[in-house]
Amino acid sequence: MKIAIVGAGAMGSRFGYMLHKAGNDVVLVDGWPQHVENINQQGLIVDDNGVETVAKIPAMFPEDCHEVPELIILFTKSMGLKKMLQDIQPMLGQNTKVLCLLNGLGHSETLKEYVPAENILMGVTLWTAGLQGPGHVVLSGDGNIEIQNVDPKSQAAAKEVCDVLTQAGLKAQYSENVIFSIWRKACVNGTLNSSCAILDCNIKEFGELSEAGSLIRKIIQEFAAISKTDGVILDVEEVAQGIEAIYDPDQAGAHYPSMHQDLVQNHRLTEIDYINGYVARKGQELGIATPYNQLLTTLVHAKEELLIK
Amino acid sequence: MKIAIVGAGAMGSRFGYMLHKAGNDVVLVDGWPQHVENINQQGLIVDDNGVETVAKIPAMFPEDCHEVPELIILFTKSMGLKKMLQDIQPMLGQNTKVLCLLNGLGHSETLKEYVPAENILMGVTLWTAGLQGPGHVVLSGDGNIEIQNVDPKSQAAAKEVCDVLTQAGLKAQYSENVIFSIWRKACVNGTLNSSCAILDCNIKEFGELSEAGSLIRKIIQEFAAISKTDGVILDVEEVAQGIEAIYDPDQAGAHYPSMHQDLVQNHRLTEIDYINGYVARKGQELGIATPYNQLLTTLVHAKEELLIK
Repeated sequence: MKIAIVGAGAMGSRFGYMLHKAGNDVVLVDGWPQHVENINQQGLIVDDNGVETVAKIPAMFPEDCHEVPELIILFTKSMGLKKMLQDIQPMLGQNTKVLCLLNGLGHSETLKEYVPAENILMGVTLWTAGLQGPGHVVLSGDGNIEIQNVDPKSQAAAKEVCDVLTQAGLKAQYSENVIFSIWRKACVNGTLNSSCAILDCNIKEFGELSEAGSLIRKIIQEFAAISKTDGVILDVEEVAQGIEAIYDPDQAGAHYPSMHQDLVQNHRLTEIDYINGYVARKGQELGIATPYNQLLTTLVHAKEELLIK
Repeated sequence: MKIAIVGAGAMGSRFGYMLHKAGNDVVLVDGWPQHVENINQQGLIVDDNGVETVAKIPAMFPEDCHEVPELIILFTKSMGLKKMLQDIQPMLGQNTKVLCLLNGLGHSETLKEYVPAENILMGVTLWTAGLQGPGHVVLSGDGNIEIQNVDPKSQAAAKEVCDVLTQAGLKAQYSENVIFSIWRKACVNGTLNSSCAILDCNIKEFGELSEAGSLIRKIIQEFAAISKTDGVILDVEEVAQGIEAIYDPDQAGAHYPSMHQDLVQNHRLTEIDYINGYVARKGQELGIATPYNQLLTTLVHAKEELLIK
C-alpha cells in the first residue's frame, strides 16, 4: 500500500519502519530539517529491540509532498495537527484514507474541517518509541492498535487498514467503539501526565502520594461528565484502577510521562489543551463544572510561560 | 507589662525586642534549642535597619515556663499552635490575655479550646522580619497591627494592649472588624503563597502570567463564599486589585512568598492547611464548592511528600 506517515517523530518512524519492512511503499513526512536530511542521506537508523538496522525510506517536508497516497497516518503533535492538515492539502486525494493516531481529544473535529468523514479513521495505539536523535529511532516493548471508521459506510476501508498494519506486526484490531478507547487513554494522560508535570515526579512517585487516589478520581469524574455528552460512558472506578495498575515500577512506574519530558525536561509546549484543556473547554461550553481540569490546565500553561522563554 | 512572646522566631523576636526596648518585662518562649541557647548566652542579636544591637532578653523552652504573664503574644507556625497551647498551660493565668498574630484562618477556634473567650485577642500584622540564624534577627521596613477582642466585654483590655504595642513603636490600632482583615490577608496568602510555591516563581513572575488575573479571582471567590458564612463579606474585585498592586517589583514583586521559602527552598512543611486548606475543609463541611482551594491544597501536600523525606 502507498502510505505517507505525516509527523514522523518517534512513533511515526516506528510505524514507517515496520510498514516499509513489510513491503509497503512508505514516505516519511516531517517538518524537522535535520531529521529529514539525516534520513535521506544515511537512511533511518533503527534500534529494533537492540538490533541496529538502517531503512532506506524517503523523507520530505510537508510542503514538498504532491503525490497522493492511499493512506495517511497522522502522528503530529496535537498542536501541530491543524497546520499540518493545511500543508498536506495536495496529498489528500478523493480516496485517501486518513488514520489519526494522535494522543488526546478533539482531533476528529479538526480532521473534519479538512477531510471528508468517509475518509477519516480514528485510532488509538499503545505502541511506544523514542528518538535517539534526528534520523535515529529506538524501538522496544510491545503494543497494539484499535481503529474505527467515522462514517459507517467506511467499515471495509478501516478493516483493510487493520490488515495492512497487522501484516507489518503492528497488531491492529477493528474496534466497534474506538471513541471509548480514545477517552479511556485520555484519562490516563489527563491524570498522570499533567500531575507528574506539575509536581515534577515520575509515575511511581505520584502513585505513592497519599492523595493520589482521590485526585485521579476527581479528574476522571470530570472526564466522564464530558465524555457522556460524546456518547461515551466511563466507569470512573474501573478507569482509576486501570491507572493504578501502572504505578508498579515493573509497568510504567519508573517512567516520566511525555508531558513531564516536554515541559520539565525539554522546556517545550505541552499537549495540555488536547487533554485536560479539552475537558475544561467543553465543560465551559456545555455548562458542566470541570474545575480540576481547568486549574490543571491553567497551572501547566503557567509553567510553560515560566519555563519557555 | 509582663509579656511572653510564644513562638519567638523572626516575627516573635522583632516584637520581643521592640517591647523590651520600650521597658516591658519580656520573655521569649521557643522550642528551637540553638535559638534559645544563643539568646541566653549572648543576648538576642538584632540588625535593626542596619544598626546592630544586642538585647538581653531571657529565652526559655515552652515546658519550662511557669510564671504567669499579663500578656502572651502568639507567633508560632500555624501547625504548632495546638501543641504550644498544651505546653504553656501553666502560663495561662485567669487574667492572662492571649493575642494571636499568626497568619492563616481558624486559629480562634483552636484558641477557644484552651483559653476563655474573654482573654482572647485576635490580630493581624503587616510587620515583617527575618532570621539570620539562631539568636539573630534582622529588621527592616515598616508595619502596623490591628487588634480586636473576641468577647465584647474585653474591649478595654484590647485597647490597653494596643497602647502597649504602640508605645513600643509597633503601631497597633483597635479594629472594629479584625476578622475582615484576617480574611483579607488570608486571600493574599491563599493566592500568592500557594501558587508561587507550586509554580516555583516569585510574585512578579506570577503577576506576569497571562492567567494570573482569572486564577486569583477564582481562588478569592471561594474564600468569599466561605468568609460569608463567618459573617465577612469580601469584595472579590477589590481584594484582587489589592493583590495585583503588590506584583510591582518596587512593592513585594521580587519576593518569594513564605510558602515558597518553606517548601521549595527549605523543604519544610507549609501552612497550607490554615490557608487554602481551611477554605477547602470548611467548603466540604458546609457543602460549598471550593475545588480550586481543594486542588491547590492537594498539590502543596503532594509537593511536601515529594520534597520532605
